[in-house]
Amino acid sequence: MIRVTVWNENYHEQKYEDVRAIYPEGIHGCIASFLGKNEQYQVQTATLDQPHCGLPDDVLEQTDVLIWWGHCRHAYVPDELAEKVHQRVLRGMGLIVLHSGHNSKPFKLLMGTSCSLQWREGDRERVWNIMPTHPIAQGIGDYFELPVEEMYGERFDIPQPDGTLFLGWFAGGEVFRSGCIWYRGLGRVFYFQPGHERNPTFWHPDVQRIIYNAVEWAAPSRIADSLDCPHAKVSPEEKLQMK
Amino acid sequence: MIRVTVWNENYHEQKYEDVRAIYPEGIHGCIASFLGKNEQYQVQTATLDQPHCGLPDDVLEQTDVLIWWGHCRHAYVPDELAEKVHQRVLRGMGLIVLHSGHNSKPFKLLMGTSCSLQWREGDRERVWNIMPTHPIAQGIGDYFELPVEEMYGERFDIPQPDGTLFLGWFAGGEVFRSGCIWYRGLGRVFYFQPGHERNPTFWHPDVQRIIYNAVEWAAPSRIADSLDCPHAKVSPEEKLQMK
Amino acid sequence: MIRVTVWNENYHEQKYEDVRAIYPEGIHGCIASFLGKNEQYQVQTATLDQPHCGLPDDVLEQTDVLIWWGHCRHAYVPDELAEKVHQRVLRGMGLIVLHSGHNSKPFKLLMGTSCSLQWREGDRERVWNIMPTHPIAQGIGDYFELPVEEMYGERFDIPQPDGTLFLGWFAGGEVFRSGCIWYRGLGRVFYFQPGHERNPTFWHPDVQRIIYNAVEWAAPSRIADSLDCPHAKVSPEEKLQMK
Amino acid sequence: MIRVTVWNENYHEQKYEDVRAIYPEGIHGCIASFLGKNEQYQVQTATLDQPHCGLPDDVLEQTDVLIWWGHCRHAYVPDELAEKVHQRVLRGMGLIVLHSGHNSKPFKLLMGTSCSLQWREGDRERVWNIMPTHPIAQGIGDYFELPVEEMYGERFDIPQPDGTLFLGWFAGGEVFRSGCIWYRGLGRVFYFQPGHERNPTFWHPDVQRIIYNAVEWAAPSRIADSLDCPHAKVSPEEKLQMK
Repeated sequence: MIRVTVWNENYHEQKYEDVRAIYPEGIHGCIASFLGKNEQYQVQTATLDQPHCGLPDDVLEQTDVLIWWGHCRHAYVPDELAEKVHQRVLRGMGLIVLHSGHNSKPFKLLMGTSCSLQWREGDRERVWNIMPTHPIAQGIGDYFELPVEEMYGERFDIPQPDGTLFLGWFAGGEVFRSGCIWYRGLGRVFYFQPGHERNPTFWHPDVQRIIYNAVEWAAPSRIADSLDCPHAKVSPEEKLQMK
Repeated sequence: MIRVTVWNENYHEQKYEDVRAIYPEGIHGCIASFLGKNEQYQVQTATLDQPHCGLPDDVLEQTDVLIWWGHCRHAYVPDELAEKVHQRVLRGMGLIVLHSGHNSKPFKLLMGTSCSLQWREGDRERVWNIMPTHPIAQGIGDYFELPVEEMYGERFDIPQPDGTLFLGWFAGGEVFRSGCIWYRGLGRVFYFQPGHERNPTFWHPDVQRIIYNAVEWAAPSRIADSLDCPHAKVSPEEKLQMK
Repeated sequence: MIRVTVWNENYHEQKYEDVRAIYPEGIHGCIASFLGKNEQYQVQTATLDQPHCGLPDDVLEQTDVLIWWGHCRHAYVPDELAEKVHQRVLRGMGLIVLHSGHNSKPFKLLMGTSCSLQWREGDRERVWNIMPTHPIAQGIGDYFELPVEEMYGERFDIPQPDGTLFLGWFAGGEVFRSGCIWYRGLGRVFYFQPGHERNPTFWHPDVQRIIYNAVEWAAPSRIADSLDCPHAKVSPEEKLQMK
Repeated sequence: MIRVTVWNENYHEQKYEDVRAIYPEGIHGCIASFLGKNEQYQVQTATLDQPHCGLPDDVLEQTDVLIWWGHCRHAYVPDELAEKVHQRVLRGMGLIVLHSGHNSKPFKLLMGTSCSLQWREGDRERVWNIMPTHPIAQGIGDYFELPVEEMYGERFDIPQPDGTLFLGWFAGGEVFRSGCIWYRGLGRVFYFQPGHERNPTFWHPDVQRIIYNAVEWAAPSRIADSLDCPHAKVSPEEKLQMK
């Protein structure tokens, strides 16, 4: 059983009718619905407008994999909450950061870089699968197409990924490292670029498959209590002599 | 000309006579003196007890490579200053973090992990050179010995390095990734484990050579003004058609 | 169902009584017996002294994960067979290379380096677990001890691993990257250093657990027919216009 | 002084007038001429049609950086010569592999993978600079354009690079890891995708700058005599006690 929490800013869906038309139950509702089909996933949603920004301690502490979508309200996430998410990833929780979440506080804390990129309004995108043996790429062909997606282009200011799974091609002339993984502490992080709020990207079967695979990949075997610097008062050699 | 600033907490040297006996001009003084022999390096020192913690904006903005030694006073470095150092590395400045600097604010901001490790009082260390072709390893043999060094042992909670240059062996039974590099933003970071304040480690010729090489390696070709997310209003393809 | 073939030189076990005393059914027999307890693994053995060196085409083509132990008879493996193993890994088969297999033809073909190292007769080894979240490290503590193991020391001439899981510490003063993974083509490769024929290493529960985990990790989702350079006569953009 | 040898198949230039029109002195002649402007580079050329395929032992043994261009005559390079090149790279020589050299014997021996890719006749390419701080990228802007270049598309079957410097975008819809580095043995390898014989690619100032930078980056500090597995008869600890 993997406990998944889908976190969403849930701002555009409430404010703009055209966004609500695509995601009537919010981006979080869409993602939760397709993940929820797997009985091994126990899925809940959380949104910024809820108390504690949707992530009180007991929710966060019972999450194995956190999915994060945010765009224009990153600043409304308190530093303290961002740091709690950060620490829980280091202790083992999986984190899947979608699209404009590249600029979210938890992602930037984990990467240590600016995570900046260049961007442009909607364009046609083709997502190439360059690491087909990775668990996250299972079931994905050589590439798939998104008729309209917000352009995110290089240079993407990230640490060298521990695996670059997908490369994005945009008709207007840009490229992007669209799917990347990192190990951080005891946790696993997957960043996936598609998913602008005005495009029906999260209804695309390949996008759903990738997020679905990523949950499985990011799920922890265990979550540690702390990551302290232990003072080893006795060396392994001394211990051996004590026996 | 590479502008190097050697930053030091400069606490133990003032408080403890035995430390002062080893480093009469402080750890910073020792490092500055051997680096200063190279006329291509313009070396200055900075210490925590100076105004602005030794790093007012004009000093930081005129530093190409910053060397950082801190141990028990990490908390005295204001978050704001740590963030300025962090941002300047992302914009291109080189950073060399020594020994207990693994727990310093700038290093942890750049790594995004806890940077925890296990430690133990002085032991004999042997430092193995496992990437002899790297610029930082030039002039270093298969290994060198440190008669006494504080034990730092795995697991070291760091992102997978972009290069692991040195592995430490301790007589008491531990191992450590003792020299590692990372690219972060436009900057380069080198972490080097030896250098406890009560050991004459920075007088060791191999340690000096490694720090010397690291300055050369970390020196930036340029330092950028910012790392924003640019809004590309026109695509490369449209620009082409405008011609 | 994962089809595992355990390949062994099977030379020392036949020639030397002291080796036979440790591994009465051969190293291959020992490994096959503990793997075989998992009903999801269909395990068979193959040895150099069999026809086709134990790996006729039909055996190789029905292997999902190949385990390789060889020491003094690497040269007796025909180049043609080594190349077949190499190609099958590139097409998806998992490969687990044990101990002196670092010098085997298939491993060297996959690495592209000399795979040389320094070695010394038996010493006490401690194996540190530095990537505890990796599937191969599940169930392993901070470290485990081998009372006697052949010393393999750095510098190990390998490509930078895609993951360094274990570091070996030897009482005599050396260190080693004792467990490493690489992605090659569509296949996965795990190298594990312990396992000299005169030590009961493969009876050690942690060693068994690691090999057991590695089989699961290296098992392919599919094995491709070929790895040709396809001539794409029509571009994706033209295909789109044809629709 | 860096001793550079530019090796070329030199087949198309002799057989086809249109290729000769672009490279009247051969691709090797073009590359040698722009590299030769640096007085610190001692540049010579070598071609397949010369005795010993242009690389007798004394030439190879006096080369610090070898540049390799081949396309349809890879099979004419004897295995023995390919292996000599391979071994010299492992001992420290730099290797720069251009365009269709992805399929050359020395490159495939070093990579250990099929190095396959998909390809298509000439298209417009844009080369994005995603690691602007790397020595090889110095002087290169955010991207540069090649009006016509042979399309090389993913999936490129290579080991995960130690650095991915450039990403290629093709108007027809493909992407490619167009500039990659690897450390192998004591040597450094750079692969660069542009450079089909029917395009004036090697006259492009950015392409010239990249190759120029790559020579500097790949130049060895020293070249070892061998890469044997030394038998360490005495441990460092025993040596210490002998003192």
